[in-house]
Amino acid sequence: MKNKAVVLLSGGLDSATTLAIAKSQGFEVFALSFDYGQRQRVELKKAKEIAKKLAVTDHQILTIDMRQIGGSALTDSIDVPMNRDEDEISKEIPITYVPARNTIFLSFSLAYAEVKTAQNIFLGVNAIDYSGYPDCRPEFIASFETLANLATKVGVEGKEKLKIHTPLIKLTKAEIILKGVELGLDYSLTHSCYNPKENGSSCGSCDSCQLRLKGFKEAGLKDPIEYTKSY
Amino acid sequence: MKNKAVVLLSGGLDSATTLAIAKSQGFEVFALSFDYGQRQRVELKKAKEIAKKLAVTDHQILTIDMRQIGGSALTDSIDVPMNRDEDEISKEIPITYVPARNTIFLSFSLAYAEVKTAQNIFLGVNAIDYSGYPDCRPEFIASFETLANLATKVGVEGKEKLKIHTPLIKLTKAEIILKGVELGLDYSLTHSCYNPKENGSSCGSCDSCQLRLKGFKEAGLKDPIEYTKSY
Repeated sequence: MKNKAVVLLSGGLDSATTLAIAKSQGFEVFALSFDYGQRQRVELKKAKEIAKKLAVTDHQILTIDMRQIGGSALTDSIDVPMNRDEDEISKEIPITYVPARNTIFLSFSLAYAEVKTAQNIFLGVNAIDYSGYPDCRPEFIASFETLANLATKVGVEGKEKLKIHTPLIKLTKAEIILKGVELGLDYSLTHSCYNPKENGSSCGSCDSCQLRLKGFKEAGLKDPIEYTKSY
Repeated sequence: MKNKAVVLLSGGLDSATTLAIAKSQGFEVFALSFDYGQRQRVELKKAKEIAKKLAVTDHQILTIDMRQIGGSALTDSIDVPMNRDEDEISKEIPITYVPARNTIFLSFSLAYAEVKTAQNIFLGVNAIDYSGYPDCRPEFIASFETLANLATKVGVEGKEKLKIHTPLIKLTKAEIILKGVELGLDYSLTHSCYNPKENGSSCGSCDSCQLRLKGFKEAGLKDPIEYTKSY
């Protein structure tokens, strides 16, 4: 249906903002999260809280063990990089890149969309602060939309088209935060750190924390989450 | 690497033949199977036997619970259609269609290929006996290949291309069987039935059994697997 949307919800700042945008555009939201063996487990707790707070129609958490495939610092026992400067962060594909992660997540969202007869998928990817991940680029998203319309019943029957929405793709982190705040989103519900402490507080030093802190600073706002040091 | 290939191995006739073809072309094979809550559990046992017999380098069985998404007679408690004639089988997308299944499987194979530095993915889809599944069409495969090269490090670095091989796509079931026999494949290792009996014998009446039996008949061969009735 035209007013139904699947929203990929990691529990991070970007996906929470994306969910708030989908709701503000009048979509009935079906949220989808993944338990993929990520070290930042607190994300899933946050995803549940956000889904509840933003009154989604349904929220599924799918378990897919990507550790079996390996190849990333986010799922393997590899140290995540810390205290890198901005140039280092943007220069190369980092070891926190999970092979084909967005392709896998979008594929499941496609299945979920088909079952729920939703014709919209929202994904909070960002081409500016994208940290060099290949599967966050606009050309990747356009290609997935083409694939989605060939892969499903919708595509064969040809009546309606499935659309992939990426409302954050051209926004800076600061613009994303200002958009969320405008929509009334409470960012204390979100989590970004790759390397959180046991009590859930964020390290402030990994690439993800650094991008987040820089975004809040540029937006002229204070990040409401807890860090091990104060920022 | 150019001589490494990921082969999607369900344990069925088509994927086993595809694996035999990849081996005959000199590829070092990394086989990938999925435990996705399919009712035909015997498939996975067969996949293991085939992987062993054909001496693959590595065989991973990934657990992904597609029952949580639902929408198919292969994963839900819906009866599979029985004793349909050929026209009925080919006319529409059947309820045994699992939403976005090949998209999901190919996405994982892409992750596995990236980790193993394989530049080839083999998939046993077939556009002739494809039973109306949208994600078995050549245009779907071509679109996934485009996506794969945008989604991964290979795509960003642009040195090498990832290729999706579908050696069966234009073959009839009889031609597939003759090809496998030519390569020395033992089809008693394969399973096709959607609705097997507890002892593993095939029903002979579901769409998959009917296509298989027709294939062997047209190839002038006797199917070596056990059926509850004799054919």
